[in-house]
This record gives sequence, C-alpha cells and structure tokens, in this order.
Amino acid sequence: MELNANVLKNIRRVEPYVPGEQPQNKVIKLNTNENPYPPAPGVLKALKDLEYDRLRLYPDPAAEELTDALADYYHVKKDQVFVGVGSDDVLAMCFLTFFNSEKPILFPDITYSFYKVWAELYRIPYECPSLDEAFCIQKEDYYKENGGIIFPNPNAPTAVYENLEFVEDILEHNQDVIVIVDEAYIDFAGRSALELLDKYPNLIVVQTFSKARSMAGMRIGYAIGNPELIKYLNDAKYSFNSYTMNLPSLVCGIEAVRDKAYFKEVTDKIVETREWSKKELKELGFQFPDAKANFIFATHPEYDAEELFQALKKEGIYVRHWNSERIRQYLRITIGTKEEMNILFNFLQEKLKNS
Amino acid sequence: MELNANVLKNIRRVEPYVPGEQPQNKVIKLNTNENPYPPAPGVLKALKDLEYDRLRLYPDPAAEELTDALADYYHVKKDQVFVGVGSDDVLAMCFLTFFNSEKPILFPDITYSFYKVWAELYRIPYECPSLDEAFCIQKEDYYKENGGIIFPNPNAPTAVYENLEFVEDILEHNQDVIVIVDEAYIDFAGRSALELLDKYPNLIVVQTFSKARSMAGMRIGYAIGNPELIKYLNDAKYSFNSYTMNLPSLVCGIEAVRDKAYFKEVTDKIVETREWSKKELKELGFQFPDAKANFIFATHPEYDAEELFQALKKEGIYVRHWNSERIRQYLRITIGTKEEMNILFNFLQEKLKNS
Repeated sequence: MELNANVLKNIRRVEPYVPGEQPQNKVIKLNTNENPYPPAPGVLKALKDLEYDRLRLYPDPAAEELTDALADYYHVKKDQVFVGVGSDDVLAMCFLTFFNSEKPILFPDITYSFYKVWAELYRIPYECPSLDEAFCIQKEDYYKENGGIIFPNPNAPTAVYENLEFVEDILEHNQDVIVIVDEAYIDFAGRSALELLDKYPNLIVVQTFSKARSMAGMRIGYAIGNPELIKYLNDAKYSFNSYTMNLPSLVCGIEAVRDKAYFKEVTDKIVETREWSKKELKELGFQFPDAKANFIFATHPEYDAEELFQALKKEGIYVRHWNSERIRQYLRITIGTKEEMNILFNFLQEKLKNS
Repeated sequence: MELNANVLKNIRRVEPYVPGEQPQNKVIKLNTNENPYPPAPGVLKALKDLEYDRLRLYPDPAAEELTDALADYYHVKKDQVFVGVGSDDVLAMCFLTFFNSEKPILFPDITYSFYKVWAELYRIPYECPSLDEAFCIQKEDYYKENGGIIFPNPNAPTAVYENLEFVEDILEHNQDVIVIVDEAYIDFAGRSALELLDKYPNLIVVQTFSKARSMAGMRIGYAIGNPELIKYLNDAKYSFNSYTMNLPSLVCGIEAVRDKAYFKEVTDKIVETREWSKKELKELGFQFPDAKANFIFATHPEYDAEELFQALKKEGIYVRHWNSERIRQYLRITIGTKEEMNILFNFLQEKLKNS
C-alpha cells in the first residue's frame, strides 16, 4: 500500500545532517576526531562489574552520581551540572531552551555544522559573522544586538583557540543573552571558560566525554552553568524523555571522570603527537592555523584538497573534507597515534613527490 | 552573580513531567512497570565481551545490527525499523515529525501522560476524548476530522487491551493521518497491530525494550512502519543528534531480541502471576478493568486509594497513584515476582481487616 498525499502533507521534513563516515573495516580513521586511546581502565572494570540485574530497572533520571562526579572534578555545585546523550543532545536542549528570542542568535560562518541545523529545526533566527582570513573570530562582530551567542573554543573545524580574555570580552559585551561556549576540545587547548562562571551567570559551558575522555561510543555530554539555567535545561529534558542516560553510561562515566592521572596521560600524549604532526605537515608544505584541538585543519598551496582526500581514502586513510565555500581546499586531520600519523605522512610524502 | 531579567525573558520554560519515584534502598518496587526478572543471559555476556576499545569510537549512527535483528524478529524489512533512546525518545520524534497539522490530534483523556507534554512542547493542538465508565476507548470518538491519532494498546494506566478489529476500525476511519499505536505492553496482551502494517501505510507501531525485555536501564525503543515514514523519523533524528544509541545498548539490544525462548519464558511467567494476582485482588474486594499489561489498575470501594498508597509506601511497598480526576481512587500495581505479590497481598489483607 502506498501512502496517500494527505498523510504526507502534514509531515515535517528536515534536511538531515550528514555525519562523518564510519567505515567498518580496518582503516586509519582520522576523520571524526575520536581519541586513538581507549577509555580509562576503571571504565572497563565498571562494565565488567555492572550489576546486571539493575538493567531491568529505569536508570536514575537525575543521573546524580555522574553529576556529582563532574561537580567534584570541576569544583562547582551539583545543581550547576546537566548531563545528556553526548554534547549534541546537550546543545540541542540548550538551543531549544535558551534561544527563544525574536532576535537572531550569532555563531561563526565556519563552525560546527549542527548549529545551523538546530536553529532551523527550532525556527530560531540566526546570523553567521565571517571568520577573518586567518580563520579567527572577530570579537567586534559579537557586539551587536542578538538573541544569544554560541561558538566552539577551540573552534571546529579550524582548531583555533581563543584565550580567556577574548572569551571574557564577548561575555562583557553580551550580558543580556545566554552565551554558550562549546568546549568539546578544550582539554587539548588551554584554560576553560569555566573560570568565568562566577562572574557571568549568563554563561553556559558545554563539554563532552567523546574526545579527551575516549568515550564517543558511550554518548555523554554535559553543560555547566548557573543553577537556575541548569534547572530550565532539566525541565526541558524531563519533558522529552526523563531517562536519557542508560545504566552503562552512568557507571562508566563516573570512572572516566575520577581517573585524573589517566586523563592527563592521554591528553598529554595527543598534544605531543599534535605538535610533532604540525612540524611534519609544515615540512610537507602544508599550511594551517595554529591547531589547539585534537585535529589540524590543513591546506597545501600546490595540491587540491579533494584530490588528496580521495587519494588518502583509496589508501584506507580517512580524513574529513567539506565541499563548501572558503574551506574546500582544507582537510581536517584528526590526531591519531604516532604510528598512524607516520603512515599518513609517509603516504603524503610519496604522493606529493610523484604528483 | 544573579541572572538579570533580560536573560530570563527569552528562556523557554516547560512544565516538567514527574517520573515515578526511583527509591534507591531495598523496597518492593511495583510502581514503574519494570520487569521483575533480569534481561536474557546473552545480554550479560554481551556486556562482558564488549570490545572495550570500540568505546573510543562513535557508535554506528544507523544502529544497523540492531534494526536488522528487530526486522528479522518481526518479519519486516530493515528500512521499516527506527530505534531510539527508549520509546519516549521514539514517541517524541513521532510527535515532532508526524503531528504537524493545524487540526487537533486525538488521544484518550486517561492515558500515558507524556502525550500531553509533547503536544504542548511542540505546540500541537490536541483533544482528549473521554474513556467510558469502564475505562474503554470509544472508537466513534476517533471518527471525526483530526491531525493524527495516538493511543497505547494496552492503554496505560488502565491495562485495558482492545483487539485487532477495534484497532483496524480506527485505522479504517483515519487513512488521511498518521495513527500511532503505542504497544509498550503488547507482549503481555495479545495480537499486535503489526499485522495491519501491510494494509495501512499510515500506521506506526511503537514498542520498547523496557517492559517485556527487562531492559528499562538500557533505554531502547523502536517504531515500525512504512519505509517512507521511517525515513522521515531518521531525518529528524539525524538533525538532533546522529549518535543516540550507545555501544552497550546496541550490542545488548541484539542479544535481547535474539533469545526468543527466554523472552517467552519471562512473559509467560508474568502473565501467570498477573492472572493469579487478579484472583487475589478480587478476593480482597478490589475492582479493576480486565488487566492485559504487566500491571493492574485497581480500586477498592471501601478504602481510599491515596491512604492505601501511603500505607503501602510506609511499608516499603511502592505502587503508583495519581491525584487527578477520575482516577484518584485507583492504584496502578506492577506485577512483580510471586513472592513480591504475596508480600503485597498479605499486607493488604491485614490492613483492610484492621481499617
């Protein structure tokens, strides 16, 4: 039986976001900014020790033990922490809850592509000030009247990090709206806007377990902010689905937060590999804004990015490429292990030599 | 620092749904319709064998292995299956996607309380035809013009099941809108509306792993329907959050679907306990519509439900009570193990004798 035209008339159609490829075979996967190292050992233990019989029960809707662990770690109160199914869930809830004005929200023209999708989904007006030639945010663009502000720091896919004075300047100029700093990659970069929370109650900082904590497969993200704002997020969450965080994510999340030594070891290793990778790429003739995330956004003045992307893919080396204005000559290369990066650089060296 | 009034002006405030209590201490928990038995043994094995290193990677956004397993089990094509974070996530996506008309959607006055919350969240107009005195849906109420229909079968919290002819009659009269049958409790009841899918392409059937499959703690729900409708659901999902199902839920979900023998054993046991519980409750003087779910919706002509609810709670026996019109003299009692039900009945016997 076919669907009739009347049924189709009232269905909301959305242009879906296209996520990066998830190849299932053995490849060198440098395309979705995952961590090359496994989660903290305590996570494995938590999985093995999971009280199996508890799976039949609904999980704690408040995710209290996990929010407690995060509050401890970041030295905030537990009513300042909101958790969700990855930072995408947290950010979508923030858009729905905080960007409810008639005035346009502001975010950079080159940034995380989901912002536009959520704004359109919730019919939030938006404007996208351009990054400058060096892919930096121009803070003056954020001085005008607006319905809210969001930007990643470091920005994606550029990997450019702005220091705390820069972030504070934007907050200073925007005390009547919610300002969200999306810090998915902050642990590879520098000081977090969390330091500004006491001074700016309109600030929301969003972070994730998917990058520095090696748990993209577990889907955990969180927002930290003023208790009243966090309450509104929780109200919105409870009205969708009270029990979003499943039991494995709750028990494993706690262990990932607690193991500070492992966390430091892994992030240090990635930062070290990134710094070495920058040198290697420069020697190969690549150019890029200074990378402070777990990826590098690189272009080569003599070689077409799309062609390099296809050649790498053919070799089983996946990086990310967007066929869109301003960035089509760039490749976003995730920092893998030193061994993986070596394979990439060796291939590039051969390829560039013979082109 | 306090939030200023301008910031607060543009925040969307939602009246949150209040979930059933999740007491953490040792109690007899008959208040949220959980399964008293653990998930299939394969689920435990899948958890222990989980490829730990895969946690660092994003999970398969299409949840392909899980949708394949469900398609196999229900003899439908895999493009007819949509999975989400519990049936609440699936239902919320259905409301957003399918109920996009100016005409009111219809659902019963006494039913799952989230329907109203989602309708309000998405600003969908709605009407709630009354159940009759016996808590049955009057199918004629659903013959009028509308923007879509949703009802649970069995209904909650009444546990009343309508047969397939009844469901087909509603579909027969509503071929120009989406009709969603929310079958969270169908495995304890009778024939599923899935049998009607070939004839009615506007039908969506929603089910869950939280009840008969003992996995409320894992958060898995699914919708089955026409491939085109399922595609629209996926588009909406991808625009929120591409990676909603974490790795443990994917690998464990597959095992829960595959073990047909264990599934039958558990549901048979619960149905048997339910039938025996009905007799016991009748002997105690309770009245209830014939219960076909894993709970009984019972009232006692001589005793106040709220008072019984409080007395049970004091005893560490949790059931569910709503202080709302038409149902405030009712208790919703989940079917536990035979031992748990015995403790409940013994206490009620003493209590009613001494009141």
